[in-house]
Amino acid sequence: MADPTDPRLTPLALSLPATVPFVGPEAQERARGKPFVARLGANESAFGPSPKAIAAMHAAAAGSWQYADPEAHDLRQAIAAHHGIDAAHIMVGEGIDTLLGNLVRLTVAPGDPVVTSAGAYPTFNYHVTGFGGILHTVPYAGDFEDPERLTARAAEVGAKLIYIANPDNPMGSHHGAATIQRMVSHVPDSCLLVLDEAYIDLAPEGTVPFIAPDDDRVIRMRTFSKAYGLAGARVGYAIGPRPLIAAFDRVRNHFGMARISQAAALAALRDQDWLGQVKAMVVAARDRLAGVARDNGLTPLPSATNFVTMDCGQDGAFARQVVKALGEAGIFVRMPFVAPHDRCIRVSCGPDDAIAAFAAALPQALSTARAAS
Amino acid sequence: MADPTDPRLTPLALSLPATVPFVGPEAQERARGKPFVARLGANESAFGPSPKAIAAMHAAAAGSWQYADPEAHDLRQAIAAHHGIDAAHIMVGEGIDTLLGNLVRLTVAPGDPVVTSAGAYPTFNYHVTGFGGILHTVPYAGDFEDPERLTARAAEVGAKLIYIANPDNPMGSHHGAATIQRMVSHVPDSCLLVLDEAYIDLAPEGTVPFIAPDDDRVIRMRTFSKAYGLAGARVGYAIGPRPLIAAFDRVRNHFGMARISQAAALAALRDQDWLGQVKAMVVAARDRLAGVARDNGLTPLPSATNFVTMDCGQDGAFARQVVKALGEAGIFVRMPFVAPHDRCIRVSCGPDDAIAAFAAALPQALSTARAAS
Repeated sequence: MADPTDPRLTPLALSLPATVPFVGPEAQERARGKPFVARLGANESAFGPSPKAIAAMHAAAAGSWQYADPEAHDLRQAIAAHHGIDAAHIMVGEGIDTLLGNLVRLTVAPGDPVVTSAGAYPTFNYHVTGFGGILHTVPYAGDFEDPERLTARAAEVGAKLIYIANPDNPMGSHHGAATIQRMVSHVPDSCLLVLDEAYIDLAPEGTVPFIAPDDDRVIRMRTFSKAYGLAGARVGYAIGPRPLIAAFDRVRNHFGMARISQAAALAALRDQDWLGQVKAMVVAARDRLAGVARDNGLTPLPSATNFVTMDCGQDGAFARQVVKALGEAGIFVRMPFVAPHDRCIRVSCGPDDAIAAFAAALPQALSTARAAS
Repeated sequence: MADPTDPRLTPLALSLPATVPFVGPEAQERARGKPFVARLGANESAFGPSPKAIAAMHAAAAGSWQYADPEAHDLRQAIAAHHGIDAAHIMVGEGIDTLLGNLVRLTVAPGDPVVTSAGAYPTFNYHVTGFGGILHTVPYAGDFEDPERLTARAAEVGAKLIYIANPDNPMGSHHGAATIQRMVSHVPDSCLLVLDEAYIDLAPEGTVPFIAPDDDRVIRMRTFSKAYGLAGARVGYAIGPRPLIAAFDRVRNHFGMARISQAAALAALRDQDWLGQVKAMVVAARDRLAGVARDNGLTPLPSATNFVTMDCGQDGAFARQVVKALGEAGIFVRMPFVAPHDRCIRVSCGPDDAIAAFAAALPQALSTARAAS
């Protein structure tokens, strides 16, 4: 804990909680004294990255004595070509988390209002609070983020930013392209919509909205951490209007990206065949996880992502017991933080053996949770 | 360029220049249409990382679908054991640049004064300006940073931070341990000394000061980018008092580090034999570079780092011509930004073939510069 009387910390730094958005599974493994049997809690892609991305990392390892290109030129050009837009609309960074932090720093001064859904991405909230912004939340509409209330609330409080993830984490739900396009048309003047599309590669046809890259109302976030299976490489990118993308150069850590990660992401992007295979494996794993849920009396929610959120039919205390018991049995899963969604557990897709380990552990975990409640 | 009228950027963001601390060599390579023959401009270690670090990266590549441990537990423990201190005094981050950014964010509010030397590390200055701090500079004493003037100036302006690098970049000079220890004793109350020891592994015996890790007046910065040859992996660490180290958790990007980089740094730290070999290669390369300088009528400055700063004996305009002509000949070097040090060029150590390429290109580059001036 920082000394709250240390006069060298800024008033803002002194005001911040010492909490962190997520505890890593490694910390839990150290606490239990052995590794997890199945790692299904962080929506990582246990199907792994493209073999070509792995080969690119092997080839790039010895060259790690060199700093990465601070402009990530080759990767940025490849991403631009992939989307059929100009590279001036693309900012590459060390994962969406870093890009969100930079964006909040650029747009949110202390006291500025920001709108998000109650129970949406904690790391976004961490950045807003960390730069002194004031969070205003709106409830989900059932298991869906509520675009109309988000934009309405933004107009009401004069928000600088609105955050929405489509598909959504932690509920796995999604809105179709038309709904998001309508939301964009309702973004108030002097506000920017942050459209987090971390899971978009795994969503059904018709989910990707058409938004012109120079549309001044939106910045989109994409990542190599989910479908591309490179969470540990830290590569994400933003798509937005040129002046906003250029503004990142005023605050970002220009040499912050690992050289090997640029090489990995470039190879991953070029292997769309692998991405197609992952999508098919994710669809099959979602079905399998849904079956496990139903076999155990849980209700699997429809998912447009690489995880399945399962309604345990009871309260947050019960679901927390289930997550705890699963953890003790060697199965790492997480759950939504906020009611009413915390009635659910959230299980990432993975290969058959991981799902089988989850299926084997779930009945006992539910019994344990029932006994404890 | 960001639109200076965009009402969604903060006043601070709008006030920042669009400049970046360094242009990467890759941008220069793209401009000249071919790669550099010798990459001796960024004080990278062209001797490469430990073969064991490369092997660790190969072994870790396929696991890049997993996020890295946000606590970097194993690496932090190993660093702590290496220094014989508790891991609570260690914060690991994505290179010193990231740690400096976090530190400035924690300590410097808009308008807060910060003291550094005129011509010292531009990226530190970038962070201070980026968070609204006010830079106060003191001149070097010849080719050395001036500890007494730095602390005196800090007292005068009420600085939150003092920055000093020992050994120094870009001059390659260093102070002995006793001088730095005396400097620590002069740090004013309510001020923190940032002791950047990026090059300390390459300095002569007697350079590492004794500073207790819980000394409240100092935070030290170390890196795997220089002697360990892992600039592209982005791994640095801070050593400081527990409350200050803990404060990083309030603002840092917990999942910001590449998983493969943690593995690489851990293996590199464990291979002290390789570090010893690199030190010997750096000493030999410094001698060789000094010889090349003298052969061409330049004055090599003594160096406690992995680069040699060479006094061209004329002004900044002349040295800039030399750097430009070397670049056109395929030799990437840099130079100090600020007078009077910009009379020099700065050449990184490297293997024989790279130094030979530099030696072959230098006479013509000097002739070109003389003709232009």
